[in-house]
Parts: sequence; C-alpha cells; structure tokens
Amino acid sequence: MNVAIAGLGLIGGSFLEASKRAGHTATGFHHDDEADFSSADIIIVAMPPLAIEPWIRAHSRTFKDGAAVVDVCGVKRPLFEAFRNDYATRKWHFVGGHPMAGKEVGGFANATPDLFDGASMILTPHPFTGRAPLDTLEEYFRSVGFAKIVITSPEHHDEMIAFTSQLCHAISSAYIREPLAAEHDGYSAGSFRDMARVGAPDPDVWTELFMLNRDNLAAVLVRYIERLENLREALSAGDAKRIHATLEEGVASKARLRRRAEAAAGAEG
Amino acid sequence: MNVAIAGLGLIGGSFLEASKRAGHTATGFHHDDEADFSSADIIIVAMPPLAIEPWIRAHSRTFKDGAAVVDVCGVKRPLFEAFRNDYATRKWHFVGGHPMAGKEVGGFANATPDLFDGASMILTPHPFTGRAPLDTLEEYFRSVGFAKIVITSPEHHDEMIAFTSQLCHAISSAYIREPLAAEHDGYSAGSFRDMARVGAPDPDVWTELFMLNRDNLAAVLVRYIERLENLREALSAGDAKRIHATLEEGVASKARLRRRAEAAAGAEG
Repeated sequence: MNVAIAGLGLIGGSFLEASKRAGHTATGFHHDDEADFSSADIIIVAMPPLAIEPWIRAHSRTFKDGAAVVDVCGVKRPLFEAFRNDYATRKWHFVGGHPMAGKEVGGFANATPDLFDGASMILTPHPFTGRAPLDTLEEYFRSVGFAKIVITSPEHHDEMIAFTSQLCHAISSAYIREPLAAEHDGYSAGSFRDMARVGAPDPDVWTELFMLNRDNLAAVLVRYIERLENLREALSAGDAKRIHATLEEGVASKARLRRRAEAAAGAEG
Repeated sequence: MNVAIAGLGLIGGSFLEASKRAGHTATGFHHDDEADFSSADIIIVAMPPLAIEPWIRAHSRTFKDGAAVVDVCGVKRPLFEAFRNDYATRKWHFVGGHPMAGKEVGGFANATPDLFDGASMILTPHPFTGRAPLDTLEEYFRSVGFAKIVITSPEHHDEMIAFTSQLCHAISSAYIREPLAAEHDGYSAGSFRDMARVGAPDPDVWTELFMLNRDNLAAVLVRYIERLENLREALSAGDAKRIHATLEEGVASKARLRRRAEAAAGAEG
C-alpha cells in the first residue's frame, strides 16, 4: 500500500518505520510540509489533538478518492464531531484511530519499527464508512504489528481511555510530585519504577488530551479518589478490618481480570 | 557462612536459593519447625510482621553468641522498639532489614536465586551493634546479589517506605477496583499493566504492614490525594493553565530524580 505519515514524533516515526518494515511504500512529512497526497491510500495524521483538523482541512484537496485518513491522537469525540456532518460530501474517509502503544520518551529519535507489535489498534469510524476502507485499514494495521483491531464508538473509547491511559498518567504525575521522591534512591524497587514511569508526559499534548476528555477523566478520578480516601480514613481510625476489606477487593478484582483474560485467550485460540 | 532462614515464602525461599548460589551453607526452616540454630552465623526471619517477635523469643535460647538475627519485613519501628531495651543483656544481635525486592506473586514456588540481584538492602541496626556484625551482614547481603547496603534509622525507613512501596500498593489496589477495569482488554497498554501490577498483595500481610506504619502512610496519602484533587478541580473548571502547571511539575520532578540518579552513578563510578 501507499502510506503517507504526517507528523513525525514518536508515533508518526514508528508508523513510518513499521510501514517500511512491512514492505509498504511509506513517506513521512513534517506537519508544515507542503505536499501532494494524491498517491496515498492511507494518510496517518500523527499530531497533537488540536493541530489535526486544521491540517486535514488545509491538505484535503490533494487527497485521492477513497483514501482513508486516520488520526492517532488519544481522544476521539472531538474529531468525530468535526468530520461528522460533511461526511457525505467528501470522497475520502476520515476514521478516528488510537494505537494502544507508546513510550515514556517522545520524539522521532525514539521511534522504532516494533512499537506496535502485539498491541491493540482502536478505530472509531463514522457509521457511513462501509466495509471496504475498514478492511483495508485492518489489513494495514495488522501488517505493521498490531495484534488486535477494536472498532467502537468515540464515546466508549473516550470513557475507557480516561481510565486505562489518562488516569495512569495523572496518577503517575501526582506520585512523582511527592517531596520524598527526591530521596528514593536505596529505598525503592519495581513498584516505585512502575509508578514513576509515565509521570512526565509532554505537558502541551497532555493538557489538550485531558481538556478534551475532561468529563470522563474527572468522573473516573472522583471514584478513584473516593477509594483512596476510604483507605486513608481506615488508616486514621486504625480500622484493620476495613483495610483488609479494601485489599480483598483488589485481590477479587484482579482475579476477575485474570479470568476474563484467560477466557478471551481461550476464545481466540 | 552458615545461614539459617526461618519462613519459606517468596522472600525466605529466595534467600535460601541465593545463599546456596553464593556457596554458603544455608538451611531453610518453616516457621513452626522445632530446630537448633546454634551453628548459624546469620538467621534470617522471613515471616509476616506480627509473627517475627514471638518466633525470635521462642527460639533465641539456641542462637549462638555473636549471631546476627535479621528480620526482613517491610516496617522497621515496631521490632526495633521490641528488641531495643534488652539489647545489652543478649549475646546475639537483632538487626532490622528490608530487601528492596519482590514480586507480585508470593510463595516458595515463585522464589528465585536472582531475586535480589542489583537491589538495595536496608538495615536498621541498634546503635550498640558495632562494626563487626554489620561488616559480616554487608558481606553476606552483597554475596547474595544486593548492589547497595543502606544503613538508616527505623523512623527514616518507615517514612520512606510509606511512599516508595506502601503507597504504590495502595494506588494500584485502588486503581484495579475501578468498575471499568473489567472491560480494559483492547483499550490498554503498558501504563495500565504497570498500574495494575502490584494491586493484589496478600491482604493479611499487607493489612499488618499498613497498620504498623499507618501514621506515615496516612500522611503521604493525604498529600497524594491533595494533588489528585487539585487536578480534578482544574478539570471540572476547565482550567487548562492549571492542568498544564501540574503536568509541568511532574516533568520538573522527574528531571530532578534523573539528575540525582546520574550524580549518584557518577559518584559511585
């Protein structure tokens, strides 16, 4: 396939390298390049959330008929709304996308062809998109390493991602801002490393992501704080039984996740 | 050296295997074994916090003069207090210890000889202990894989560990108890995996650990909840500037950690 990648940070750069590894004709463009996209079957727009719509509007007259234009940012409702109404008047398809892969360091220098190997790719297509472009996209994303393609609504994506990704970054950022962190050396191991890993995501990009999904992130944060506050109260009261009950709930919850994962693996295999 | 290990879960079992790997004469004992410890230079008591003092009192008449008895549980003030006053009347040494190593799965079946490789071993000796037993312990702990020996007060240990270990377990437990966790498959990647990893520690052992350090854990939890609440307020108010500021603080904090780590590596190398 002929693939154009616009925006060459960690994700765009990795799509470029993974596409080449898969044998596609792939070309990368910086976000401010003047370029002709008329030979591209797939155009991946790998830019910060608020830069995507203007870029697509500015370059769309060169898109070929039937091309699939996929953004890969972490919130899916705003662009879905932006491209919803003029869907029928266009000859190219806009499909929201979110690769479930990343690193705690960004930029083209950290891009690798194997970044997506084994990961899940989420697509939030307009209902009018139809089978053909989605089949092409599924084939492409599997070819660059994704093990799973999830097709869902932008609403469900944004609710899930508030928990599976954004809350993790919020938690990690709040964790490493603890004053005692400065003295951790010699007093820490794996759980500290895991907790600190994604604590410093790019503030510009992640402020946009948090703002565009603030309803979902605030909701999941309220429930999360409630569970921590419950533990804090139990600690202050010296209530061992209540502490035990919260830990038991964690064990039960993790056991449920494990059973579901095993059932899913069984169903696939 | 002749090493006895009492208590054969993940940590005790790993000390047993690592001691054998290092060429020591090592023997493991279940916590309820009747045994004679008179040939042991080092006795490692790898049991849940509240079981340690009774075990030591019950077996101490067989300890040889000069033996170093080390517990390896995650809170250090209570046993320090318990063995503080009769220090001068004993011929063996009690030294609090805490290996900065573990796994999200416990038990002897998961024990490995390399569990401590590269990790830090914290010791909280009584001030009367003196140089000789601590030199022996340092030599032993380095021989089983530890890269660093930290000697500190039980108070400083407990304050630090509330943040570097206990808070991580509390955070992870609260994270996986979110109802949306059941649907994470296809919507998650590394940050979810990291966040969920230590969410289900043994409720009996960790209730003891949390209770014995509840002042420190509650204090660090209050500050942590405050930072999360600050983000939640900014989200609810749609205050992008304030969200950006919290993320910037995370970046600055992580950069400080990196600089300190590099400086420490430079000083050692």
